[in-house]
Amino acid sequence: MANPTAAMLVIGDEILSGRTRDANMYHLAGKLTEVGINLTEVRVVSDDEPAIVAAVRALSGNYDQVFTSGGIGPTHDDITADCIAKAMGANIGVRDDALKILQAHYDRQGIEMNEARLRMARIPDGAQLIDNPVSAAPGFSLGNVHVMAGVPAIFEAMVAGLLPTLTGGQPLISETVRIDRAEGEIAEFLNILVAEYPDLSFGSYPFRFDGAFGTNVVVRGTERDQIERAAERLRSQQGKPNSD
Amino acid sequence: MANPTAAMLVIGDEILSGRTRDANMYHLAGKLTEVGINLTEVRVVSDDEPAIVAAVRALSGNYDQVFTSGGIGPTHDDITADCIAKAMGANIGVRDDALKILQAHYDRQGIEMNEARLRMARIPDGAQLIDNPVSAAPGFSLGNVHVMAGVPAIFEAMVAGLLPTLTGGQPLISETVRIDRAEGEIAEFLNILVAEYPDLSFGSYPFRFDGAFGTNVVVRGTERDQIERAAERLRSQQGKPNSD
Repeated sequence: MANPTAAMLVIGDEILSGRTRDANMYHLAGKLTEVGINLTEVRVVSDDEPAIVAAVRALSGNYDQVFTSGGIGPTHDDITADCIAKAMGANIGVRDDALKILQAHYDRQGIEMNEARLRMARIPDGAQLIDNPVSAAPGFSLGNVHVMAGVPAIFEAMVAGLLPTLTGGQPLISETVRIDRAEGEIAEFLNILVAEYPDLSFGSYPFRFDGAFGTNVVVRGTERDQIERAAERLRSQQGKPNSD
Repeated sequence: MANPTAAMLVIGDEILSGRTRDANMYHLAGKLTEVGINLTEVRVVSDDEPAIVAAVRALSGNYDQVFTSGGIGPTHDDITADCIAKAMGANIGVRDDALKILQAHYDRQGIEMNEARLRMARIPDGAQLIDNPVSAAPGFSLGNVHVMAGVPAIFEAMVAGLLPTLTGGQPLISETVRIDRAEGEIAEFLNILVAEYPDLSFGSYPFRFDGAFGTNVVVRGTERDQIERAAERLRSQQGKPNSD
């Protein structure tokens, strides 16, 4: 059976303006690969209702799982929860279970609940809460859409709690073979391997080191034996001269 | 007049599998902001023809400019040029101008041209070449789609050459005001400013430092005076107690 597919939606003006370097995509990509869920597409959109709603609908329809980051805080630009509800056709309001979690957190810290903080208890009907061990305000899963915070420490904690509840596939295994020859020199041999091993994928990443050209070839698949055989074939190209 | 809009398409399995951390999005976002082009959407897709073609068509139709990174090297997984040609309905083949550039580069280095390297001279009919001062193999612009390499040093050099040829808008100016109060404390005041300054955008980014909560508010717009006035109002919130 094919592995489940996934998409990620990163929400936030700060990423698109270049103010903030997104870190969540790289984190999620690695974690999904570990559990055998194939991250197939990522989109980044701004804090803009029509853009978020359209992206959620497109991704939720095309992939098994959708993960979002950003826009679930207390301020005016945090519109993700309402947009998800709209995209998925659900009602949304302050929910008792979320409010209880927030109230307990603020009580412990001696902080007062106010209208802004109350926004973070707005959760669509029918959604499951995602635990936030860092700052209490929960994320949520609605249908196949998992809504998480943009702050990396919180996003990562939410992913850690969420992933064990999802059904993964066969973890993707990869092996990197470094060949000290230019990409253009090994391309022809790579084509032969690609044809020989239809179940594996081969990525080719050129680098330059001390003025010499080299290539990292990444072999990916789910069968370790097969990957090992292909990697061995690749290593046989190491000794060849850099221009033949 | 509104600023031109732009989208970016990052192409590559290595980003989606978590093997490589994309750096080009952050770089391009900053550069576009400097020249007044609004990066409005980013998509990341794998080295997969239907995915690339669909994304190029959607983005090229929706935005003034589209920038792609990745997939223009010599190996089997470098399919971007052919996909762009297909998406835009152009013919593609080895083009003399691109071949001349590559041949001169390899001649200088005493490297032989081969079939794999010849692939990098495949350029759609009607496209303008984008200069590659790092490793010669050119990018290209076809219609409103600008196709560049994925290796960050090459991508950045191509962007540096390309951007002065595009028409920008009014550069977006931003000012960050650090307020040592929790996001939930200043949200209400922020709402007032948002209503007062419809031409400005306000982003709110919570942080935690030495156990205390704080918020960076980023004010963005094109009129420096207006931004300064709004920032001054924000700074007036600094002195207030952290729970009122």
